Amino acid sequence: MSTPSSLESLVEALRCLPGVGPKSAQRMAYALMQHDRTGALRLADSLRGALAAIRHCGRCNTFTEIELCERCASPKRDASLLCVVETPVDMNMMEQTHAYSGLYYVLMGRVSPLDGVGSRELQLERLLARASDGIVEEVIIATNFTNEGEATAHYLSEMLKTRSVRVSRIARGVPVGGELEYVDSGTLAQAFRERRTFAE
Amino acid sequence: MSTPSSLESLVEALRCLPGVGPKSAQRMAYALMQHDRTGALRLADSLRGALAAIRHCGRCNTFTEIELCERCASPKRDASLLCVVETPVDMNMMEQTHAYSGLYYVLMGRVSPLDGVGSRELQLERLLARASDGIVEEVIIATNFTNEGEATAHYLSEMLKTRSVRVSRIARGVPVGGELEYVDSGTLAQAFRERRTFAE
Repeated sequence: MSTPSSLESLVEALRCLPGVGPKSAQRMAYALMQHDRTGALRLADSLRGALAAIRHCGRCNTFTEIELCERCASPKRDASLLCVVETPVDMNMMEQTHAYSGLYYVLMGRVSPLDGVGSRELQLERLLARASDGIVEEVIIATNFTNEGEATAHYLSEMLKTRSVRVSRIARGVPVGGELEYVDSGTLAQAFRERRTFAE
Repeated sequence: MSTPSSLESLVEALRCLPGVGPKSAQRMAYALMQHDRTGALRLADSLRGALAAIRHCGRCNTFTEIELCERCASPKRDASLLCVVETPVDMNMMEQTHAYSGLYYVLMGRVSPLDGVGSRELQLERLLARASDGIVEEVIIATNFTNEGEATAHYLSEMLKTRSVRVSRIARGVPVGGELEYVDSGTLAQAFRERRTFAE
């Protein structure tokens, strides 16, 4: 093998991307050098640009380029509601529903003992301080309904129980448009257990 | 949505990587910014390093950082043999066999009419000039045994027929260690058709 060293370094460096192993890193490096040098240059510049500009919002912890993100700085949001999500992407998903006008706290992860991610890594004391500021009345936990997301939700609810805030969890159930025939039985069981009385 | 613009640019830029769609680009960008800023910086530097250093060997067309790649410059290689491969990776695979000591020509692609890749895009005139230099005695076509690789092999053999060189194709057949029970019938049919008489 006599792969040029700069190409070898590039293959190695591409492996920092999640889900990219040695074979795909090699394929990516060769494809960039052969077919898309403009794209490669743009990627290098974007990486440097994002590294220089991106930081965490001092309040909600999401990615931002300014001290306080637009959402946290907005006077139009309802500061008595605090929604806890795992990632900035989840926050964007919530925003797209237009069903929520409160504020957020982004965990930037989830409790995952196997990966060594506990309450310290997630900086939960910041969330706790936020929940105890006297303005927040309800904390809505919107972590994923995966095992780790559920564990995180449980952990947070235990932690927040002692504070004088209402703690809620977004609802589980049959998706809108969902047919019972095609819904997994776990979801159906939950939807059954958490059934609601029709408003009278 | 209020994704910071530098993050949006990064997501967009990551899509230049083969096999990366909008969802994985987003996942990659967020993971880099959250968990691996060192890796992101190294990637940016490696991209720039490779872009500045990598070019094509003037003789065999592979990636190199010098005018003529080590292999082409080596006096130990048998210059009467010229092996044609699709990519530098394929060339490395051939080298790892230690079964070949001739020189190479790297197509950097394959004939693919659907993608608009023909003889012009592959710069086949350079290969033709090489095959007609009076030194090369045999051109061994080692493109893949895919449809496009086979079409390329056929095209090359037709093109080289008029020159006074022997043109050969690496053998198809049952892989070493292969059991007939698990070999696909196409391969088996070829192995049957291209059977060899035992040396006496």
